Formats: sequence, structure tokens, C-alpha cells
Amino acid sequence: MHPRHDTVAGLWRAAEDRDWSTYADFFAPDVVCDMRQTRERVRGREDWVRFNSEYPGDWHVTVQRVVADDDGAVSWVEVRIGEHVETGVSFFRFDDHGRVSSIVDFWPEPYEPPAGREHLVERY
Amino acid sequence: MHPRHDTVAGLWRAAEDRDWSTYADFFAPDVVCDMRQTRERVRGREDWVRFNSEYPGDWHVTVQRVVADDDGAVSWVEVRIGEHVETGVSFFRFDDHGRVSSIVDFWPEPYEPPAGREHLVERY
Repeated sequence: MHPRHDTVAGLWRAAEDRDWSTYADFFAPDVVCDMRQTRERVRGREDWVRFNSEYPGDWHVTVQRVVADDDGAVSWVEVRIGEHVETGVSFFRFDDHGRVSSIVDFWPEPYEPPAGREHLVERY
Repeated sequence: MHPRHDTVAGLWRAAEDRDWSTYADFFAPDVVCDMRQTRERVRGREDWVRFNSEYPGDWHVTVQRVVADDDGAVSWVEVRIGEHVETGVSFFRFDDHGRVSSIVDFWPEPYEPPAGREHLVERY
């Protein structure tokens, strides 16, 4: 397992634990976090920790997959808020100290499939 | 670079080239492809190749990132159809022959950010 796998698993665990001091240590001071779908950007560790610690609702994170190599890492998580489940996919890059230097986040929403491919797919 | 990195780069190249015979060789005969947002599932290499080869429009794929390790791989691609750009994130797993045995696909759509976090984000 690549060491960055543990970094990503650890930062999600710290978030789930609301251990914001440990969480902050996973990030470089000048980390940049892009949410691609809303075109929002958070600059700097302090605001990134606030963004997460202030995130509303009694949310709980379950890590589904982490893939990591020398070029970076990706996580797929499910975030449950009551009955509601959100899916998050995050692409991480790291600095020379192994801290997260950039994140690109996707939070894909469900939608109806386009017509015309019913002969090739089943629904689940 | 993990060898699965080349597998993922190669299958996207074959798709871009409409080289469906080469594309098919990247997949196990019983590959299962889940599109999580629409809850569509395609079973088997033959239907998966058809799904892609029949995909409408003059689409062109650019690979943005590939991350791969012993447990699987992830790609982030942009697919351009004329002026329109779609983003695709795919999680791959492989069989013992290095062929793709499962895919979970996300095609996140843009949306407006929720209110209440303007003090922490900029738009880009």
C-alpha cells in the first residue's frame, strides 16, 4: 500500500472524529481546494479546516475506496446526513512533506439517464 | 508508474481512436460497468463496447489524471462534444490477467453552491 493511502484514510478519519487539530496537520499551509461543480475555491489550511468544521448537519463519512500512487491519490466517500447519502470523489496532490497541497472535489448528484440505450443497460 | 496506469491510459486512447477491437481487449468478458448517478448497469464486454461505440456525438476524450495501485485505478477525463465539456471519473478494478473486471462511473454535472459559505470560498 502506498503511504499516501494512509494519509487519505487518516484525514477522513480525523474529519469523522471532528478532530480538527489532527485534520489540519494533513494539509499544507497553502493548500488549494477546488470544488469543480460549483466552481468554488478555498485557499489555505485555515479556511479549509473551517469549511469542513462548519459544514452543517450531523454528517458521517464512510470511505469506499482509496487509490494512491507517487503522483497523488483519490478517495471515494459516502457522507450520510440522516437518511440522505452524498457521494464525494476527491483528487489529492501532496507536497514534499507528504501533506495535501491540492484537492479537486466532485460531489456527483443523481440524475435520470438519457433515452436510447435501454437495450444495453439494466437499472439497479 | 504502476502498470495499471498504462492500461487505463490505453483504453481511453483506444476509445478516442474508435479502435473498438483494441478497446475490447482491455476488458474481461464478464466486466460489469455501473453508472452510479443514473443507476444503470452494463454487463459483459460485448454490450460495454457497444455502449461506447454507439455513444452519440463527435466526442473527444482528454485524460486529466490517472491514479493506480495494486487495488485498482481511477481516471478523470474530459469529454468534449463540440462546445460542450463533460467530466468523467471512473474507478476500475482488474482481474488476474490485468483486464478491467469492473468500472464504477461518475459524470458529475455543474450546480450552484449552497448559501452560507461565501466567507470561505471564491468562485472561479
